[in-house]
Amino acid sequence: MATHRIGILTGGGDAPGLNAVIRAVVKYAVGKLHWQVIGIEDSFNGMLDAPRRLHDLTPRSCQGLLHRGGTILGTTNKGDPFAMPDGSGGHTDRSGELAAAIRAEGLEGLIVIGGDGTQAIGLRLMDTHGIPVVGVPKTIDNDLSATDLTFGFISAVETATDALDRLHTTAESHDRVMLLEVMGRDAGWIALWAGVAGGADCIVIPEIPYDADRFAAKIKERRMRGRHFTIIVVAEGAAPKDGNTLPSEVPHGIGTLHTASAAHTLAKLLTERVDVDVRTTVLGHLQRGGGPVAFDRVLATEFGVRAVELINAGQWGDMVRLNKGKVTSVPIRDAVAEYRTVEENHPLLAVARSVGIEFGG
Amino acid sequence: MATHRIGILTGGGDAPGLNAVIRAVVKYAVGKLHWQVIGIEDSFNGMLDAPRRLHDLTPRSCQGLLHRGGTILGTTNKGDPFAMPDGSGGHTDRSGELAAAIRAEGLEGLIVIGGDGTQAIGLRLMDTHGIPVVGVPKTIDNDLSATDLTFGFISAVETATDALDRLHTTAESHDRVMLLEVMGRDAGWIALWAGVAGGADCIVIPEIPYDADRFAAKIKERRMRGRHFTIIVVAEGAAPKDGNTLPSEVPHGIGTLHTASAAHTLAKLLTERVDVDVRTTVLGHLQRGGGPVAFDRVLATEFGVRAVELINAGQWGDMVRLNKGKVTSVPIRDAVAEYRTVEENHPLLAVARSVGIEFGG
Amino acid sequence: MATHRIGILTGGGDAPGLNAVIRAVVKYAVGKLHWQVIGIEDSFNGMLDAPRRLHDLTPRSCQGLLHRGGTILGTTNKGDPFAMPDGSGGHTDRSGELAAAIRAEGLEGLIVIGGDGTQAIGLRLMDTHGIPVVGVPKTIDNDLSATDLTFGFISAVETATDALDRLHTTAESHDRVMLLEVMGRDAGWIALWAGVAGGADCIVIPEIPYDADRFAAKIKERRMRGRHFTIIVVAEGAAPKDGNTLPSEVPHGIGTLHTASAAHTLAKLLTERVDVDVRTTVLGHLQRGGGPVAFDRVLATEFGVRAVELINAGQWGDMVRLNKGKVTSVPIRDAVAEYRTVEENHPLLAVARSVGIEFGG
Amino acid sequence: MATHRIGILTGGGDAPGLNAVIRAVVKYAVGKLHWQVIGIEDSFNGMLDAPRRLHDLTPRSCQGLLHRGGTILGTTNKGDPFAMPDGSGGHTDRSGELAAAIRAEGLEGLIVIGGDGTQAIGLRLMDTHGIPVVGVPKTIDNDLSATDLTFGFISAVETATDALDRLHTTAESHDRVMLLEVMGRDAGWIALWAGVAGGADCIVIPEIPYDADRFAAKIKERRMRGRHFTIIVVAEGAAPKDGNTLPSEVPHGIGTLHTASAAHTLAKLLTERVDVDVRTTVLGHLQRGGGPVAFDRVLATEFGVRAVELINAGQWGDMVRLNKGKVTSVPIRDAVAEYRTVEENHPLLAVARSVGIEFGG
Repeated sequence: MATHRIGILTGGGDAPGLNAVIRAVVKYAVGKLHWQVIGIEDSFNGMLDAPRRLHDLTPRSCQGLLHRGGTILGTTNKGDPFAMPDGSGGHTDRSGELAAAIRAEGLEGLIVIGGDGTQAIGLRLMDTHGIPVVGVPKTIDNDLSATDLTFGFISAVETATDALDRLHTTAESHDRVMLLEVMGRDAGWIALWAGVAGGADCIVIPEIPYDADRFAAKIKERRMRGRHFTIIVVAEGAAPKDGNTLPSEVPHGIGTLHTASAAHTLAKLLTERVDVDVRTTVLGHLQRGGGPVAFDRVLATEFGVRAVELINAGQWGDMVRLNKGKVTSVPIRDAVAEYRTVEENHPLLAVARSVGIEFGG
Repeated sequence: MATHRIGILTGGGDAPGLNAVIRAVVKYAVGKLHWQVIGIEDSFNGMLDAPRRLHDLTPRSCQGLLHRGGTILGTTNKGDPFAMPDGSGGHTDRSGELAAAIRAEGLEGLIVIGGDGTQAIGLRLMDTHGIPVVGVPKTIDNDLSATDLTFGFISAVETATDALDRLHTTAESHDRVMLLEVMGRDAGWIALWAGVAGGADCIVIPEIPYDADRFAAKIKERRMRGRHFTIIVVAEGAAPKDGNTLPSEVPHGIGTLHTASAAHTLAKLLTERVDVDVRTTVLGHLQRGGGPVAFDRVLATEFGVRAVELINAGQWGDMVRLNKGKVTSVPIRDAVAEYRTVEENHPLLAVARSVGIEFGG
Repeated sequence: MATHRIGILTGGGDAPGLNAVIRAVVKYAVGKLHWQVIGIEDSFNGMLDAPRRLHDLTPRSCQGLLHRGGTILGTTNKGDPFAMPDGSGGHTDRSGELAAAIRAEGLEGLIVIGGDGTQAIGLRLMDTHGIPVVGVPKTIDNDLSATDLTFGFISAVETATDALDRLHTTAESHDRVMLLEVMGRDAGWIALWAGVAGGADCIVIPEIPYDADRFAAKIKERRMRGRHFTIIVVAEGAAPKDGNTLPSEVPHGIGTLHTASAAHTLAKLLTERVDVDVRTTVLGHLQRGGGPVAFDRVLATEFGVRAVELINAGQWGDMVRLNKGKVTSVPIRDAVAEYRTVEENHPLLAVARSVGIEFGG
Repeated sequence: MATHRIGILTGGGDAPGLNAVIRAVVKYAVGKLHWQVIGIEDSFNGMLDAPRRLHDLTPRSCQGLLHRGGTILGTTNKGDPFAMPDGSGGHTDRSGELAAAIRAEGLEGLIVIGGDGTQAIGLRLMDTHGIPVVGVPKTIDNDLSATDLTFGFISAVETATDALDRLHTTAESHDRVMLLEVMGRDAGWIALWAGVAGGADCIVIPEIPYDADRFAAKIKERRMRGRHFTIIVVAEGAAPKDGNTLPSEVPHGIGTLHTASAAHTLAKLLTERVDVDVRTTVLGHLQRGGGPVAFDRVLATEFGVRAVELINAGQWGDMVRLNKGKVTSVPIRDAVAEYRTVEENHPLLAVARSVGIEFGG
């Protein structure tokens, strides 16, 4: 069997399981197949500083990685080599320099672990400069339609569900509405799954613009039945319908604090409609941090091994994915095409409504 | 829409998520559709004591159930109504009495949550006495071929994986072999998943009779590489190949303690082959206890809602299941036919071997 | 031994372990001593609706309470019977009515579980109306000087520490400052303990008004050493020194959202001083929710048993407490006198500084 | 301030928090005071292989250690330098060689983290060879009378309590006795704390030889009250009273498996007395593994800082300890004198009995 020398990098935001993918690639490719695997720091950026920010990865250097959150390679979403910030506000195309560095280091190709943005860069490197790439999808929001699930998502859902469990115990002692804001700018998957798993009374997702009156009605209806608390999970990208008066004093875009706005907007709309004490928790980066749950470790390991198999089979240009319960692959070109959002006819949405959850629209 | 009055029961060993199924059934059938749902204690047995051990279930009585382990209805595997122990060592067929009680209570049919034994009884009740049933599969070992996954399995894997993480930290400080015995009499799914997720060095499953020499060689080979510990996960049903000398003094069948034997047999075989300190942990019922992880709560909720939909559609005789990522149904008759064990060509087995895990055969 | 009939209530905010105290009181007083224990809903308020909101508590009704968060009795801090809101903006003294209700129900006295406000009401009931009370201290902030620790505090510290662990894994992958806001309006104990336990780089507490320049210097100094992230834990009551320019656009007092302000103020002050990405997580009620850790369950059980012993010994007017490792008691009158804040000479503050933690002042 | 060059080692079994002590020593001594700290592998043994198994510890090499279980230095209890195994069954005094190696490496003295055996060796090194030592106590069983608590104990109690919670959920669904065996050969502290925290019905500790009839009576009495399960926590060193027939077929001393015997002996004695299904779980090394809880991290950090302060103050020969809520020190000579076991008059024993827990004697 031929040997190979390949690079591996992680791009975009963190997701629990990134290290487990890296470990699986190295354990298989280096430990079993005796290839060389070079870790590249901070997504494509590290390659531009080669060889300073490259690392020869070995099974030994990957010890203890399986359950560790984050990524040992570092990551960034500030590094499109086709449009690198030039320090003076403009951008420069450094993709040729990047391709040259990859060739100078003797790398046959790259395993690119990242979301649709990172995958698109990898594909463009392949198309423009002939650098072979294999993709491993990473999206904690689970919004990539080419794969049924990605590692990290179930871990994020577990974190959000645990938070809902905690809020339940304290909400039940008081007369109170508890809002939990979770990740999901464009797709409400985390909110939907965690809301079902954590027994939320209302789920607010970007796909369903909400009428705050319906949540107010839910709160009142619960009180009528002697339930003096309501738990609401809100995706960060959720927004009210037109016609809901937006409270003018809600803060927008204070530095990096804008993620707080979905829950705070809803809190304001609710307190205008019901005389109730509303408490807000913003999970933020707690969802990206921490080690992966067992499910995600298995999935990440499968993805890592499959990526090596793709290279072994010469299937450059493909991305691994989970499809109907099996780990297979698909051309990156087809994979990055479109987002998967919560469609109105999705079965879990119907299930959620069947157990009485209000979506506000 | 017509109203219904149905019974619900749980049979066999515990699995995290049983209560979540019950809650989903009640929230949907009672809370939304305004049916009546009667909880029957201790599997079919409670029906023979009707109405004393029946309970009218309401959304209120199901509060707080989503994350709670065990089953509020109780369960038993000592109650085949077709062959009930008569107290003097023999068995009596009380199925006619059972069917009469179901009719006397005005129950239109039953939702039967249980493993293949419990489902077979339900099916026989339907065939013999015309009692309509709908099945919800429950097998913590994940060994029912009709469904890709059942609730409880991922929770058990999480528990076993967490144990492996703990054993890793303490094993690394010493020169030691750590054995972890997990559930799985006939199928090694928990051992396989947890072994991959927890970074085990060896996995021992019932499907692959092992040669202890191969594990001994693995321990020695790791030492050569400076790794002075080895983590082995053992399914309770795992056994050595013929030809492996079985140590005569290993205890068999001491009261209920027989589950300890797989790990203890292996421990003995290893200490005969390598000069090493072996420590054994038997997880036992810790795997069945505790609340379900978020994934299992979602799956259990989907199963519960789908069971109600089956009744609504008149599809008695069907069992819900997860098939290629979707919750659908299948005739119970076809579902209880055969076990699913870890086949030699299962992709996860190949993945495990690719990352260097030894199976001993 | 004489029998007794007593009431029990919980007042103020939640703390993990309230149910464990109730359970211990009932298991001992009812299960062992055969007294009667009456649970009163929503602090003193439920007594004004007697007998509607009273519950005869038994060991059976307390099953499963040990590990459950919240309080089955409910709680409120809107019910000073000496100054009850009269619905028209004013207040009425209903303490005489309350004392009469207690006597009418045949309650010999009350076990009052609550913070200094609730204890002060209990004491006043005893002084003014001769209602005997025994106190059990509850303050999640650990700010009552009469007791070394109270149940709930260690649980809250564990929650905050777990959050810091998660933020660490994701911070390390990026160049970023992570702010975690924890409870503590007047006392910084949770921030101090969690900051030490979670390896924070900076801790910001109400007792030490901070100079944001020092945190900015810490961030820069860490960068110089190749550490491109900084973890800061902020008590909700922390505030900058005079002279730190307060950014005018930081929101104050938006409905109930004011708790967010300490972290957001600091975030603003930092981004004005360093070019860095700051991410904020506000734990909020996650710290009060969830079950108590083992330590708090033991302490709560000891407190509950000791409260019953005080009544048995006729020591009405006393409050249980932990003093130098032993559970003893102290007159409530002496106990509610003053807060315990983090003094400049507290040993843990010195320890924190020794391991390099910056406090900003 | 003078600089120092010191060694640090960990001896005996693992306890969560060992790494946190090492980290605190290094952060303070190296990071703040600019000393040199040399880590010695595998207790005193590594010193005999100096300089091969010595490591210069820096704040950077201690990153991520705070929450990590085990010890990065490794540990052993097979290395008394005064009586080292000579490979042929005898022992040799290599303490002179050890002292010479310490001096050759320029180490002014040692920080010895370990239990009473390790501390006694350190003291003897000081007495015999003039090697200055400072002690940090480590005993997961909490059986050292000189310190109120040591790091690791509360973590082990949390693990055992979590196991009891899990067993509760599954026991409640069945008619069953659940035995949980926890650590404690001579002292029952873990069993006592976890039993109180986890709501055990019976606690079995080495200090109270038990009469199995009393546990049988408890099981029957619970059944009478409709409680069809009983949870029993058993310390590994617990044993029945004389007169309890010891079942002859219970295995003793099978290789390293002897730790299972306490629970198995009790299981046998119970099944002889009551017709009941008994299930046994042996936690084993799960209690030593995993990261420390927040409480133990704080305590370990305080111990590490205090050890450095002792050296700074020239207080060689002292051991740090927790005494009445404060971290102080005591001469090692006085500290290793005697064990602390659960005395009959210990307050927590009385509390446990007050909430109805049976001890069998």
